[in-house]
Amino acid sequence: MLEATTLNNEKLYRDPVHDLIILDRDCPHDRVILSAIDTVEVQRLRRIKQLGMANQAYQGAEHSRFSHSIGVLHLARRIIARLERMCPVDPEEKLAAMLAALLHDVGHGPFSHVIEKFFREDHERWTEHILLDPGTEINRVLVAHSADLPARVAAVIRGESRPGWLSLAISSQLDADRFDYLLRDAHMTGTKYGVFDLERLLLLLRVTPDGSKIYIAAKGLLPIEKYLQSRYQMYRQVYFHKTVTSAESMLMAVLDRAADMAAQGAVPSVAPGTPLAKLLTRQPLDIREFLSLDDAVLLSAMNLWQECNDPILSDLSFRLLNRRLFKALEIASTEDEDLIFGTRVVSAREFLESKGLDFRYYLRFSKSSDTPYRPYSSRGNASTIWIESQQSPGTLVDVSDVSPTIRAFTESPYTIHRAFFPAEHQGVSIREAMTSLLVG
Amino acid sequence: MLEATTLNNEKLYRDPVHDLIILDRDCPHDRVILSAIDTVEVQRLRRIKQLGMANQAYQGAEHSRFSHSIGVLHLARRIIARLERMCPVDPEEKLAAMLAALLHDVGHGPFSHVIEKFFREDHERWTEHILLDPGTEINRVLVAHSADLPARVAAVIRGESRPGWLSLAISSQLDADRFDYLLRDAHMTGTKYGVFDLERLLLLLRVTPDGSKIYIAAKGLLPIEKYLQSRYQMYRQVYFHKTVTSAESMLMAVLDRAADMAAQGAVPSVAPGTPLAKLLTRQPLDIREFLSLDDAVLLSAMNLWQECNDPILSDLSFRLLNRRLFKALEIASTEDEDLIFGTRVVSAREFLESKGLDFRYYLRFSKSSDTPYRPYSSRGNASTIWIESQQSPGTLVDVSDVSPTIRAFTESPYTIHRAFFPAEHQGVSIREAMTSLLVG
Amino acid sequence: MLEATTLNNEKLYRDPVHDLIILDRDCPHDRVILSAIDTVEVQRLRRIKQLGMANQAYQGAEHSRFSHSIGVLHLARRIIARLERMCPVDPEEKLAAMLAALLHDVGHGPFSHVIEKFFREDHERWTEHILLDPGTEINRVLVAHSADLPARVAAVIRGESRPGWLSLAISSQLDADRFDYLLRDAHMTGTKYGVFDLERLLLLLRVTPDGSKIYIAAKGLLPIEKYLQSRYQMYRQVYFHKTVTSAESMLMAVLDRAADMAAQGAVPSVAPGTPLAKLLTRQPLDIREFLSLDDAVLLSAMNLWQECNDPILSDLSFRLLNRRLFKALEIASTEDEDLIFGTRVVSAREFLESKGLDFRYYLRFSKSSDTPYRPYSSRGNASTIWIESQQSPGTLVDVSDVSPTIRAFTESPYTIHRAFFPAEHQGVSIREAMTSLLVG
Amino acid sequence: MLEATTLNNEKLYRDPVHDLIILDRDCPHDRVILSAIDTVEVQRLRRIKQLGMANQAYQGAEHSRFSHSIGVLHLARRIIARLERMCPVDPEEKLAAMLAALLHDVGHGPFSHVIEKFFREDHERWTEHILLDPGTEINRVLVAHSADLPARVAAVIRGESRPGWLSLAISSQLDADRFDYLLRDAHMTGTKYGVFDLERLLLLLRVTPDGSKIYIAAKGLLPIEKYLQSRYQMYRQVYFHKTVTSAESMLMAVLDRAADMAAQGAVPSVAPGTPLAKLLTRQPLDIREFLSLDDAVLLSAMNLWQECNDPILSDLSFRLLNRRLFKALEIASTEDEDLIFGTRVVSAREFLESKGLDFRYYLRFSKSSDTPYRPYSSRGNASTIWIESQQSPGTLVDVSDVSPTIRAFTESPYTIHRAFFPAEHQGVSIREAMTSLLVG
Repeated sequence: MLEATTLNNEKLYRDPVHDLIILDRDCPHDRVILSAIDTVEVQRLRRIKQLGMANQAYQGAEHSRFSHSIGVLHLARRIIARLERMCPVDPEEKLAAMLAALLHDVGHGPFSHVIEKFFREDHERWTEHILLDPGTEINRVLVAHSADLPARVAAVIRGESRPGWLSLAISSQLDADRFDYLLRDAHMTGTKYGVFDLERLLLLLRVTPDGSKIYIAAKGLLPIEKYLQSRYQMYRQVYFHKTVTSAESMLMAVLDRAADMAAQGAVPSVAPGTPLAKLLTRQPLDIREFLSLDDAVLLSAMNLWQECNDPILSDLSFRLLNRRLFKALEIASTEDEDLIFGTRVVSAREFLESKGLDFRYYLRFSKSSDTPYRPYSSRGNASTIWIESQQSPGTLVDVSDVSPTIRAFTESPYTIHRAFFPAEHQGVSIREAMTSLLVG
Repeated sequence: MLEATTLNNEKLYRDPVHDLIILDRDCPHDRVILSAIDTVEVQRLRRIKQLGMANQAYQGAEHSRFSHSIGVLHLARRIIARLERMCPVDPEEKLAAMLAALLHDVGHGPFSHVIEKFFREDHERWTEHILLDPGTEINRVLVAHSADLPARVAAVIRGESRPGWLSLAISSQLDADRFDYLLRDAHMTGTKYGVFDLERLLLLLRVTPDGSKIYIAAKGLLPIEKYLQSRYQMYRQVYFHKTVTSAESMLMAVLDRAADMAAQGAVPSVAPGTPLAKLLTRQPLDIREFLSLDDAVLLSAMNLWQECNDPILSDLSFRLLNRRLFKALEIASTEDEDLIFGTRVVSAREFLESKGLDFRYYLRFSKSSDTPYRPYSSRGNASTIWIESQQSPGTLVDVSDVSPTIRAFTESPYTIHRAFFPAEHQGVSIREAMTSLLVG
Repeated sequence: MLEATTLNNEKLYRDPVHDLIILDRDCPHDRVILSAIDTVEVQRLRRIKQLGMANQAYQGAEHSRFSHSIGVLHLARRIIARLERMCPVDPEEKLAAMLAALLHDVGHGPFSHVIEKFFREDHERWTEHILLDPGTEINRVLVAHSADLPARVAAVIRGESRPGWLSLAISSQLDADRFDYLLRDAHMTGTKYGVFDLERLLLLLRVTPDGSKIYIAAKGLLPIEKYLQSRYQMYRQVYFHKTVTSAESMLMAVLDRAADMAAQGAVPSVAPGTPLAKLLTRQPLDIREFLSLDDAVLLSAMNLWQECNDPILSDLSFRLLNRRLFKALEIASTEDEDLIFGTRVVSAREFLESKGLDFRYYLRFSKSSDTPYRPYSSRGNASTIWIESQQSPGTLVDVSDVSPTIRAFTESPYTIHRAFFPAEHQGVSIREAMTSLLVG
Repeated sequence: MLEATTLNNEKLYRDPVHDLIILDRDCPHDRVILSAIDTVEVQRLRRIKQLGMANQAYQGAEHSRFSHSIGVLHLARRIIARLERMCPVDPEEKLAAMLAALLHDVGHGPFSHVIEKFFREDHERWTEHILLDPGTEINRVLVAHSADLPARVAAVIRGESRPGWLSLAISSQLDADRFDYLLRDAHMTGTKYGVFDLERLLLLLRVTPDGSKIYIAAKGLLPIEKYLQSRYQMYRQVYFHKTVTSAESMLMAVLDRAADMAAQGAVPSVAPGTPLAKLLTRQPLDIREFLSLDDAVLLSAMNLWQECNDPILSDLSFRLLNRRLFKALEIASTEDEDLIFGTRVVSAREFLESKGLDFRYYLRFSKSSDTPYRPYSSRGNASTIWIESQQSPGTLVDVSDVSPTIRAFTESPYTIHRAFFPAEHQGVSIREAMTSLLVG
């Protein structure tokens, strides 16, 4: 009696932030996106936490990069649908941009930013390798649609879309990526600090006729202020939380110890030639090897290392897995130079050694910094927020020129220097001694 | 100028469902709870997902048993604070009950219920072992407070608290456990199906003067109906979702294959004598070995198995890790007996073998069943919801006696029989053939 | 530098339920809708509460019919945008349907349903008058677009759209009206009982090829069950709340007293010939007079009546304004016939008279009833929920045929009979005596 | 079988912001509060909108001062329960403080701040009259508990509680009043701008040992910044919204016109000697008369005035009731002095007169101003936010001394000067001419 309807052919993703995200199997471009989602490279992101170690401070922060990637895809699609009314784009370029939104994080390694630092290689470079290498599923899926699609997606990610605003919609100060992670991280951690007026902001986004800049309509000043306030709060409350940075510093210490052991011979429970062994000996990994790394690989390695004979590797792994975290100590930033090279650090090292602790692993430093907004940056368009002038309609100004509130952010960049060390060791408290040595 | 204040001594857990959860380091009982949270046995729950494979259907469902356990502690504390006004309890028994709330899940293995089935052992038994074994940290923390605390916590979990209502507050039809998981799973999956009126329900909980029963005040009928409706929806929409059950059946197939190989000799990448090796050869694990198992151990084993020489183990691991899930096929429940032993299954097996697929791993069955509410159960108080009669104040009746809506649930238990098999194999579609063989 | 953009020409309504509701001044049909919103007839709905007296039980329930009307417009637009892909409609008929959604409540009088009962006239009849009368602003706005638009809007509201599904989208068991009020009333009262899965339901709505029926895709069974469960809860918890029905019965008593006085001569503070005077003497009101009535007119009349010489009118007005509400007493429904005509009521009346209370105003009855779902009703399509059969794709079945949960609703229609009377009078408690007289 | 339980004796208020608010009829102090809620003076607040004319811009903003007052009571109770652990208070003084929280707004007239300006009298003065006058119900309820309770409640409201922190908990920069209205107004308008981290802020509130100051623990800096950012946004987005200020200016114009007519003789439809007549002739009202005024009195007066013979009163009333609002024009604040007394205003007035518009009613000005935070104010403790110094624990500093973000607020007070006039008159557009006359 009823005719078949195309409406049955929608694929739904239920998202805790955006509710239903819908792709239509009857739309050829959506089919490409769906095939991309189903590749091993994107599915792997289910096994990498979005916020690395942040669940040590906010137990709800367990969400994966997969959820985030689907969210960025969704927001990029909404932004593009809106802005193309002002500056039309080629449908194929639009597809490349939506794929760029989905795929911008496929190059992330386990625990994201920590491994990135250990690798000394940006995840963006891995993302590009993975897209362009003919051996990956994602490459095959993209090529099946069009031979140059991998290169075009990579170009969008590098900021070289045509027109330029498509790249900006994916990565800039006002992009689908930031919009998604602020809302998602707020929802998952249970803090209320990341909430801003997404709907109004989306509505007030504009693009210049030449397609080179995304800006905000004049009446968008307050929503932008709110957005930057939210971002500022999330950085200070979540991303730079002392517990989170402490856990990250410990993961780095674990990796350093394992790498030092690898350089000397072998690491317990790590078979030579495996991707983890190569990672630790800083040998180049091929793409297949890189992609085999996920959070579970490191977690289960530490699980085994807990029981190994090396007292340092065992102790550090045990501490990190069981949340016996290093004490985080904030250090006045002006003293930083002095600290790193100066007498205080020497004394602290000597103290730790006197307690039988190798300072290379048991005294770590970090520097977290963020400027919620940085005007006229040398990094160009992607790091400036333009707004139409209220006084001179038709001209664009830097948002910090018209908002004292935002200017306050630009004038006080936020940097925290921290030292990390065990609060106690084998039942002996070393917290006070270290604190007095390091901050006087 | 300011005096030191005790208010600075609170430990906060930010929870996405309950907002702030507060423990007071100046309160001796809270200090015991805080020490219990910090044990390796509880911290391990951070590495076990609350919903096992449910993130395959709802990408947000990444939350851990740790978050849930803290939530249950919080709700148990609220319920007890309320009900002890009606039926006072010994403070030490109260502490035991709150610890029981926190610790009721420490015996869960990786991917919770799947491993439980593979082990053929309840997680409750492991929980009791872990509490009572003098080798565990949690045992030492509890004993440090009082020698019989481990046994008393175990008694509460077994349903033997004195008075009885403390056990019911932790585990019954109206307990802190269910209250927390419905709200949490709803928040994390992004469905709205699990929301009910927690605040009103908490307020309307009552306990009989002899402490043997928890019941609901007469005016609580509508909130109870809402609660059971929500539970019904969560079971059908999330816990019994076809994608979730398919992924679970595949995990079971992977484990069965690995176990069969282990029985024959060895499993690739699993060193003999390791906990995983023992698990697969069904040797008894000691507590330390059991506790070393978490989601990451299985995930990284499958990560290696993907590359191994056994085509079945490799194929199944690859499928599961990369979400090439078996097709789930609903089977009319009346045909079930016939199916399992009958000619249809024989034909389906023959078909799969003809395609080179070993039916032991490539044809799986499951039965999900739930009665949202079951009256006058033989399992006693814990499975009956009592409500004060509107007509005869002072007497309790089974809630299904006064609610046609709830009676409808009891009369239609919900059971889904499903078969699972690959939709395609090596590029060949086998979905239709199997479907027609199995359901005609 | 920047070109003028059409994107600046959007009118936003910020809605607490649907977030931003957007109309585009550059779209001719949206301009008609915007003009309709700005008419005096629609603006008047800002001065009529959506839930009448419900704020006596739920203090948050202060929202107006205006907010609701904008919400219904928004949802109707979304439903139509979806369904017209399956069954195309003429753009002008679509406009008529959206206007019908916006305007379906313009015929409501103050405190909505109470006045309707007092008038003994449906608000739908007034709505039609207002649309068709050339003296109204809304008529002029519609005619300015097209001469027959008022008649076409009225036809949609009467259920006579072509195709028929447009009327069903506005008024049926699954319509924009119910969808909006359940969510809005839940948000405003702060109960969680009205929440359902709007997004999924919208996605699963379907229309038959002949355009005569709206139905739900087979996989929509659970969302529909949830929706009907929510509706059931809202009726019982909010709309039929005893405090709400008590306040409504008192408003009716106030009006009855004022009308009885008007029939005898005059009502204090009501100038003869005013709309209120006509209302009370049950003279026909013209449209202009009807539209001058809003909540404030009745509230300020009662404000004056509090101080008047008639002890009954003064007492009742004082009680209602200051929430000295009548006691609501639930009466077993089987006794109802007996009660209304029988000896119990006679005794109760005699008792009240003995205390100096005129039973005509101080003893009131109400009957609230709802069947959350009624299958195969004689009222036709609008009151049946059709769902595509899982077993026989392509055929439609009544949803209660496939859901035991929904069948439970249909089998137990929900009717509450209540009596209302003062709990005390001039310092004397009369509650117990009346209770024992009326329910024994 | 069951004993009677005191738990059945709780009165619940369901609140959209705070969920359940619970008072216990078995607690003597709660009984006083419940009696106070049930007085005519508090019930009257149900008939006065919290946000006056803000529903003209945000249609959801229909909530009453009653809901807000219950919310402030709830938060005051939570703050006091927390802080009295640091600085104990006499239970009777605590009761006075909670009543002060509930009653602080009983002196508000219709549309709150507009009438206040018209009266040229603070609502606080009326509040005090109402509390102290033996003729009011609230006075009788308070006196029934203790003869000096009215005076003590008034003292708390005046800022003279003992200890001082109780007054600060009700009215200061960090008080129950602001906490409630930001969250409530955000929920009701549907904006997300007013949300802050209430739970953490409540937890970090402290009081000095001498009870003279409320401050924030050192770790509360970020929650305070968030709170002030939210407040800043709510002022700019909601309270000072151009549409809201326009409607307020028109209400003032209506009242001015009616008062001018009253001074000349009589106002249509307003009986001499009624409270409204006295209000318009600026005769002193007694308390009973004042309390008879609510939103409905003014709304129904305007309803009648729409039809009256005076073209100005009729036109203005019609415009306001039907949302034909004056155009709001922002004026550079430096030009303000010039504008008010200068040639621009003279020209604008002449232009309006030439169009037959009386400038006294058709050209209005407003000045909205707020400093989200003002340090070291001459108004003393109530307007400073103190925070414990991170560097020197035990000493308090002004929060703007340690936060560049907050300092930015103090340095840029926010003042908007606006002019209001009809956009068109009798079909003639006058918007452009006026705009060019007023802003050049």
